[in-house]
Amino acid sequence: MSRVPLTRKGFDAMRVSVIHTADDIVREHIVNKSVVMFDILRASSTISTALANGCQEVIPVVEVDEALAIASRLPEDTCILGGERSAVKLPGFHLGNSPLEYTPEVVAHKTVILTTTNGTKAIRRAAGEDGVVLIGSLLNYSAVAHKLFAAEQDILLACAGTRGKFSLEDTFAAGLVVAELVQLWYSRHNAAPEESCSPQADPVPIYAEEVPVLPENGLLLEDAAVAALRLAEAYRHKPLRALYDALHGQKLAQMGLSIDLNFCAQLNLYDVVPVYREGKITCL
Amino acid sequence: MSRVPLTRKGFDAMRVSVIHTADDIVREHIVNKSVVMFDILRASSTISTALANGCQEVIPVVEVDEALAIASRLPEDTCILGGERSAVKLPGFHLGNSPLEYTPEVVAHKTVILTTTNGTKAIRRAAGEDGVVLIGSLLNYSAVAHKLFAAEQDILLACAGTRGKFSLEDTFAAGLVVAELVQLWYSRHNAAPEESCSPQADPVPIYAEEVPVLPENGLLLEDAAVAALRLAEAYRHKPLRALYDALHGQKLAQMGLSIDLNFCAQLNLYDVVPVYREGKITCL
Repeated sequence: MSRVPLTRKGFDAMRVSVIHTADDIVREHIVNKSVVMFDILRASSTISTALANGCQEVIPVVEVDEALAIASRLPEDTCILGGERSAVKLPGFHLGNSPLEYTPEVVAHKTVILTTTNGTKAIRRAAGEDGVVLIGSLLNYSAVAHKLFAAEQDILLACAGTRGKFSLEDTFAAGLVVAELVQLWYSRHNAAPEESCSPQADPVPIYAEEVPVLPENGLLLEDAAVAALRLAEAYRHKPLRALYDALHGQKLAQMGLSIDLNFCAQLNLYDVVPVYREGKITCL
Repeated sequence: MSRVPLTRKGFDAMRVSVIHTADDIVREHIVNKSVVMFDILRASSTISTALANGCQEVIPVVEVDEALAIASRLPEDTCILGGERSAVKLPGFHLGNSPLEYTPEVVAHKTVILTTTNGTKAIRRAAGEDGVVLIGSLLNYSAVAHKLFAAEQDILLACAGTRGKFSLEDTFAAGLVVAELVQLWYSRHNAAPEESCSPQADPVPIYAEEVPVLPENGLLLEDAAVAALRLAEAYRHKPLRALYDALHGQKLAQMGLSIDLNFCAQLNLYDVVPVYREGKITCL
């Protein structure tokens, strides 16, 4: 592996970027960065749940045939095939893509082979050729933020998006990570965050001549990270509302999957930090 | 012109899309839609100010040479050359890109030829080959929203972005237009907007089985429009703060242009709705 994103020392400013759709990721977005992928509805939530429930590893694959081929090479009682297309379970698979199916009874000590419409592709894209990607969800965002902060490396929060478009729920989750990073930064510097949780300088009064400075030795939030932070502030006390304000959440609800939205909207249910490297997702 | 975006009748749902960088605009984003371009710092603000101050028309051009060529064909006392590269006034030009320079004394009854790093390119891109584009800024967002609502057509709010990236200030302005559209929609339907101004259905209680429905005969906000709305809610009472939270705003302030931020942050200073068509911007 040429990228070891969680070990760099002696950082000055930790730059936080957010990208809204996995399709937009190119190599310069990810090199020398800690990268997190968010696909809240539902791949990220399912992966976090499977690992929290004792699954040994999750192998994310893009194509159904590839999933079946991997399964055929493993002993039958050690592996679970999970996945969906257009939110519907695949024929011949053990499980769909609802985190509620990935119970300890079903997944403990097993290898889960997972293929989803959007999320597994997004993981591969966020990893590049040889990279490491953390998996973030509402269920574990605080644990993810702590790992990122400890890594002292520039950060890319990569939202999977929905069919190549901006996704409200993924950006909300990215914003919760930004909010947690801001809190951690203020804790380290023994300062109280201001009401709006932004590390940027306050605006100068109308027509004053002073110039605000960028924070040094701190967090540098790119504009998309600030916007995600504001989204997190809007929804942090009503996370389920964010999922219902999202078109993909509304679509899942119309398919009878409200129960999945309720589950995926739980904040910090788990401490697990799933990490993808060398083709597999395990706990960091 | 094949697109006449402000005349369609008998709409069912008005779909509101937001795109974060002009570079991402393709033909299917703009066809049969009312399109608005936002470049708050500073092209949109400068264009709105010039027209509010009595300028006859603004000709946005991408290249400096093209600006000079157009000026050379017009009588000298009828035309003003304005523009910047990297926020600095161009040599030989009358004005830079600060809206404060475009006073009635300077621009009334004149043709302004304007070329900027980002904004004039964004207008051309948002127009496509033969399109019509409204110019939105904090200075005139309410007037723009009223025109969009009256047009009863799907809407694309196109943020110029900064060097191909998401821009906080442009998305904030787009969000203010979304908020105004939501208010207008509620006014038409004689209903009070809920606290958060979203037309989407309320979330069902945890683990309930009900399914929320999409609004009919109303606004359909895509996810990026909902996120922009939340950004507008966060900053609407402190618009200058949005400009200072943006990296491009911080850069302009560091160059001594705080006075421009203060000016551009004024909400609804003008009623003008600049419209670009056939190569020229005039008042709608």
